[in-house]
Amino acid sequence: MSASIGFVGLGTMGLPMASNLARAGFAVKGFDLSASATEALVEAGGTSAASAAEAARDAGFVITMLPTAKHIEAALFNAGGIAETIAQDAIFINMSTILPEETDRIASALGERNIAMIDAPVGRSAIEAARGALLILASGAPEAMKRAQSVFDVMGNQTIDCGALGNGSRVKVINNFMGVSLNALTAEALTLAEASGLDIRLALEVMRGTIAGIGHMRVTYPNKVLKGDLIAGFPVDLAHKDLGLALQLAAQVNVPIYMGSAAAQTYSIVRASGRGRQDYTAVYPVLRELAGLPEEIPY
Amino acid sequence: MSASIGFVGLGTMGLPMASNLARAGFAVKGFDLSASATEALVEAGGTSAASAAEAARDAGFVITMLPTAKHIEAALFNAGGIAETIAQDAIFINMSTILPEETDRIASALGERNIAMIDAPVGRSAIEAARGALLILASGAPEAMKRAQSVFDVMGNQTIDCGALGNGSRVKVINNFMGVSLNALTAEALTLAEASGLDIRLALEVMRGTIAGIGHMRVTYPNKVLKGDLIAGFPVDLAHKDLGLALQLAAQVNVPIYMGSAAAQTYSIVRASGRGRQDYTAVYPVLRELAGLPEEIPY
Amino acid sequence: MSASIGFVGLGTMGLPMASNLARAGFAVKGFDLSASATEALVEAGGTSAASAAEAARDAGFVITMLPTAKHIEAALFNAGGIAETIAQDAIFINMSTILPEETDRIASALGERNIAMIDAPVGRSAIEAARGALLILASGAPEAMKRAQSVFDVMGNQTIDCGALGNGSRVKVINNFMGVSLNALTAEALTLAEASGLDIRLALEVMRGTIAGIGHMRVTYPNKVLKGDLIAGFPVDLAHKDLGLALQLAAQVNVPIYMGSAAAQTYSIVRASGRGRQDYTAVYPVLRELAGLPEEIPY
Amino acid sequence: MSASIGFVGLGTMGLPMASNLARAGFAVKGFDLSASATEALVEAGGTSAASAAEAARDAGFVITMLPTAKHIEAALFNAGGIAETIAQDAIFINMSTILPEETDRIASALGERNIAMIDAPVGRSAIEAARGALLILASGAPEAMKRAQSVFDVMGNQTIDCGALGNGSRVKVINNFMGVSLNALTAEALTLAEASGLDIRLALEVMRGTIAGIGHMRVTYPNKVLKGDLIAGFPVDLAHKDLGLALQLAAQVNVPIYMGSAAAQTYSIVRASGRGRQDYTAVYPVLRELAGLPEEIPY
Ligand SMILES: NC(=O)c1ccc[n+]([C@@H]2O[C@H](COP(=O)([O-])OP(=O)(O)OC[C@H]3O[C@@H](n4cnc5c(N)ncnc54)[C@H](O)[C@@H]3O)[C@@H](O)[C@H]2O)c1
Ligand SMILES: NC(=O)c1ccc[n+]([C@@H]2O[C@H](COP(=O)([O-])OP(=O)(O)OC[C@H]3O[C@@H](n4cnc5c(N)ncnc54)[C@H](O)[C@@H]3O)[C@@H](O)[C@H]2O)c1
Ligand SMILES: NC(=O)c1ccc[n+]([C@@H]2O[C@H](COP(=O)([O-])OP(=O)(O)OC[C@H]3O[C@@H](n4cnc5c(N)ncnc54)[C@H](O)[C@@H]3O)[C@@H](O)[C@H]2O)c1
Ligand SMILES: NC(=O)c1ccc[n+]([C@@H]2O[C@H](COP(=O)([O-])OP(=O)(O)OC[C@H]3O[C@@H](n4cnc5c(N)ncnc54)[C@H](O)[C@@H]3O)[C@@H](O)[C@H]2O)c1
Repeated sequence: MSASIGFVGLGTMGLPMASNLARAGFAVKGFDLSASATEALVEAGGTSAASAAEAARDAGFVITMLPTAKHIEAALFNAGGIAETIAQDAIFINMSTILPEETDRIASALGERNIAMIDAPVGRSAIEAARGALLILASGAPEAMKRAQSVFDVMGNQTIDCGALGNGSRVKVINNFMGVSLNALTAEALTLAEASGLDIRLALEVMRGTIAGIGHMRVTYPNKVLKGDLIAGFPVDLAHKDLGLALQLAAQVNVPIYMGSAAAQTYSIVRASGRGRQDYTAVYPVLRELAGLPEEIPY
Repeated sequence: MSASIGFVGLGTMGLPMASNLARAGFAVKGFDLSASATEALVEAGGTSAASAAEAARDAGFVITMLPTAKHIEAALFNAGGIAETIAQDAIFINMSTILPEETDRIASALGERNIAMIDAPVGRSAIEAARGALLILASGAPEAMKRAQSVFDVMGNQTIDCGALGNGSRVKVINNFMGVSLNALTAEALTLAEASGLDIRLALEVMRGTIAGIGHMRVTYPNKVLKGDLIAGFPVDLAHKDLGLALQLAAQVNVPIYMGSAAAQTYSIVRASGRGRQDYTAVYPVLRELAGLPEEIPY
Repeated sequence: MSASIGFVGLGTMGLPMASNLARAGFAVKGFDLSASATEALVEAGGTSAASAAEAARDAGFVITMLPTAKHIEAALFNAGGIAETIAQDAIFINMSTILPEETDRIASALGERNIAMIDAPVGRSAIEAARGALLILASGAPEAMKRAQSVFDVMGNQTIDCGALGNGSRVKVINNFMGVSLNALTAEALTLAEASGLDIRLALEVMRGTIAGIGHMRVTYPNKVLKGDLIAGFPVDLAHKDLGLALQLAAQVNVPIYMGSAAAQTYSIVRASGRGRQDYTAVYPVLRELAGLPEEIPY
Repeated sequence: MSASIGFVGLGTMGLPMASNLARAGFAVKGFDLSASATEALVEAGGTSAASAAEAARDAGFVITMLPTAKHIEAALFNAGGIAETIAQDAIFINMSTILPEETDRIASALGERNIAMIDAPVGRSAIEAARGALLILASGAPEAMKRAQSVFDVMGNQTIDCGALGNGSRVKVINNFMGVSLNALTAEALTLAEASGLDIRLALEVMRGTIAGIGHMRVTYPNKVLKGDLIAGFPVDLAHKDLGLALQLAAQVNVPIYMGSAAAQTYSIVRASGRGRQDYTAVYPVLRELAGLPEEIPY
């Protein structure tokens, strides 16, 4: 197997990733619909391909970093696509963010042609892509993963083995769900602080020292609900009461807190289920139940 | 002024707080509607009062730790209430969680009687109350705050001076808004992880290392939007796309993500306002604008 | 008992209501904090009182039409308030929109003084108030209601007897919850129509002929879920699918559909509970269950 | 052109639709992946085809009634698909509910082969499908629509010409968005009524006579906001206040009102924009603005 790499999709993320690979000594053949993107790779030491098929020819790894699954399927299976030339012993690595079911669909189309796939979306942003410091959420067959590790080590500074193919996409979607939603919730809290007459620096100072800023994943969840302890540190009834105060305050100062108002309704469900005196992390088993998951938390 | 303390409301929080004060050498006279609560204080070294008025007589500080503003107003102004006996040079300290406007209403009723008030709700929970390790969010006149500090030092291990009276309540409501809502959002993310076939330990491991688990208050906000930099680290358009993937995934596995689905709508507004290529922290200035706040972020 | 009426609160609604009573021959003594409001009543044939107590003196009925419960309690119990003068055989009628618990609180305070109360909030708007065509949602003791009917008949053209005191407030809050929320949902639908390239007149024409415009209260609910029939006319699974299409469409054209996106999550819960093939009105028993209500729908 | 019809997708909707066409004298050749479905059509007087291609051969109209766009594209373009046999002068009619962009994608793929398409999703349910009483939301070239009318007249009792191709899908998605979301809102209102102690028959009786049950599309919108009149019939400030009462009531009785709580936030935005004293239908221009639509309502 050659150590050459075909790289399709040289945009905000793909260009710095491919450039780092070229600088690290890999023979990188790049393709992008935009000619200027391909040229920029050449300047970084790569070579330019006239099509995705051309980029994939004779490569040991073929990487895609494209907007959506639709673009990946086009780059793979349209005329002039990767599937026309990719070698039997090459590994196809998708690093774009797509749905698990789309990952499965692509993997199974490739599987029919006996081509191995790794699903390896990335965390962090273009800045870390440029610094070779991405978080790589890789999933696939262990053998393929082992072979790809030297490639990942150039693009990222942390690779998490997420297990069976598709889990990289799963964890990526969940992670971004949380980080992106949390951003909107943070904006609600700070806007409410300011509109209610508070100095937002004070609000930030206080919240950085409490669960509000520290989050639940490191302390409350592992210490309470995840180990099955729902004895109230802070009870659901008071959490519900406090959200009620926040809703009234927000209404007085006309701050839209859509996320907080939804959270308040969820606590109403938790109370209605008879868990008012349990710890407020009891919101988690209740939500699991609403989703039809089995009672036991798999932790 | 005597160093004796009248303490009204000896429940989950009040009892350990008052007990710590008694153990630290303050003369604590306690009152609660429940006789057993008052007795427990006596065991910890306090004395028992037959009414709120009795507890307040001759005290240098009168503290309330009651469920809601309605209870505080009853304990203050009903027959047998604090207002009947509280000394002119005493300081009334409310440590219950109530609305800023309720704090103002109570302070102004006391002001008519020339009685100083401190608004000092607390962060953390009964466990920290027992350990004397509460976070005290105090606001009021500097002179009164100075006098109360030795009392706060017994109940908490950190006092934040929140400025003018009412700001303690403000920051407390905001802080709990954030911590309590974040709990519900965390439950959505973990439920979605599990329902989509992921090991929640993997999900937690990944998120603990990214913004999803670290939050926005320490890094993204100070580095980007709060210093006026909206050049995309991670652009709104991709944040919007990724929430779209999460919504589709959640629908497939029947996980209700009310908060996340609301967040997705907020990003639609951000995009519609022409900010799709800005950093995703641009959600904050957009929300401020929706709330009618001036353009400049006061940071 | 005299047929004279004390009327407190002569604003947007109160003035036309009181004026109609005066024109109909009742001796109406009005009071409002705004002198110009009281003067306007005099022009309509009423007389002016210098205080709420003055308005209430010797009246057979004392009516309040004030913004909130706080205002009503002030008008009743503050110095110069109604409670100082209202006769033992008079009936106090609150027609403002307030919470059931506030109604109960006021009624019980009046009850201690042996004064009967009717809770009679109104539907419709100032235009109907002027025309004497309000919808009156009256509740209270049958005897009092009977006596008040001639007064209601002047202000409204429809009185619904809502039963025990407090039910008027209950049904008023529910009714406005629905009408006011529905307005926001309607705005979401029409905005989505226009943004996706549709003529809103066409959208309106279509929806006026379907459940979208006709609503569920007259047809689907009585024909299906309320009589216990959940055999799918339109199944939950398709309703869920169709909301998914709407969410994707809205995301493409950047229309915030907060209400619709919340509805989609609720259908996910319904599906997760195993009701995917039932009629989509099964959302109702599921929501009842989340609120902890007993299984049987009381219809 | 022959009056024979190829019908692909004989499920809950497709089977009664195709059966009605057969009974009305059309030569209907049906295909479904499920053999029993095809047999049922034969019993109704149609004939059975072994593939979608077979059903489409020599037909004047080829109709699809399949779950999603993915199924339609498979039935059209996979091996044995409609595209292999459909005649140049035939009309392809999709009656399934799909996205406008999916309709466009299919139409353009057919357009490359010079085959005309009509987009004609249907309103109502399987009951009306059996009675030939569907609402047909047809869009496409006028000439094709004219030819298809006799076919529509068998399946439905009302055809609305929605204009250019894709508008049928648009209006269908919007219509179902509204009807399906409204169902969930109705469930919130009735659950809140019951949990707060009200007889739901009373609640229904009242709401059927007000905007809550009648909706905004026939009265408030045409009379107020759509003709540019925002003088308050019922002002935004009171609508906002009343939703606040409903939120408090719901919190007291633990009823989750996710949709209503979102609506409340939207009214906060309307107030923050300075429109508190306008009519509550002002929520519509505000939402249009959030979505980036031009100021003028195209009505
Ligand atoms: N930008 C980030 O911060 C970030 C972070 C993590 C993950 N991601 C994910 O990475 C992926 C790429 O994001 P990006 O920001 O680099 O996008 P981008 O839009 O900047 O780049 C995409 C590139 O793909 C090219 N392209 C599209 N179709 C093509 C085809 N058929 N053949 C060849 N080239 C084609 C485009 O010309 C463009 O240069 C997305 O899935 C995104 O969600 C991005
Ligand atoms: N529990 C927590 O984790 C926590 C954390 C931070 C803040 N708080 C806030 O602290 C306050 C108290 O909470 P708690 O958990 O101790 O509540 P609690 O219900 O356990 O205790 C309240 C006590 O007040 C007494 N009481 C009520 N009315 C009274 C009256 N008129 N006179 C005398 N006693 C009266 C009750 O008998 C009860 O013992 C609340 O505002 C809460 O929001 C609680
Ligand atoms: N406006 C509507 O379309 C409408 C429809 C149905 C129900 N309602 C309800 O009717 C009530 C009144 O609404 P409105 O629109 O007439 O309000 P408004 O603000 O126009 O009028 C209230 C009046 O009360 C007076 N007032 C306040 N406190 C007073 C006091 N202590 N003593 C005497 N006068 C006092 C004010 O000066 C004002 O004139 C509210 O509860 C509202 O929710 C209004
Ligand atoms: N059921 C309703 O009340 C209703 C109302 C209005 C609109 N619709 C829409 O109508 C469409 C059909 O709904 P339905 O309820 O009849 O669905 P259904 O699932 O009952 O029927 C779909 C049929 O398509 C068949 N099928 C799937 N793929 C096929 C293929 N490639 N070739 C041939 N047959 C194939 C299936 O075997 C099945 O019999 C959907 O888009 C739905 O949204 C349904």
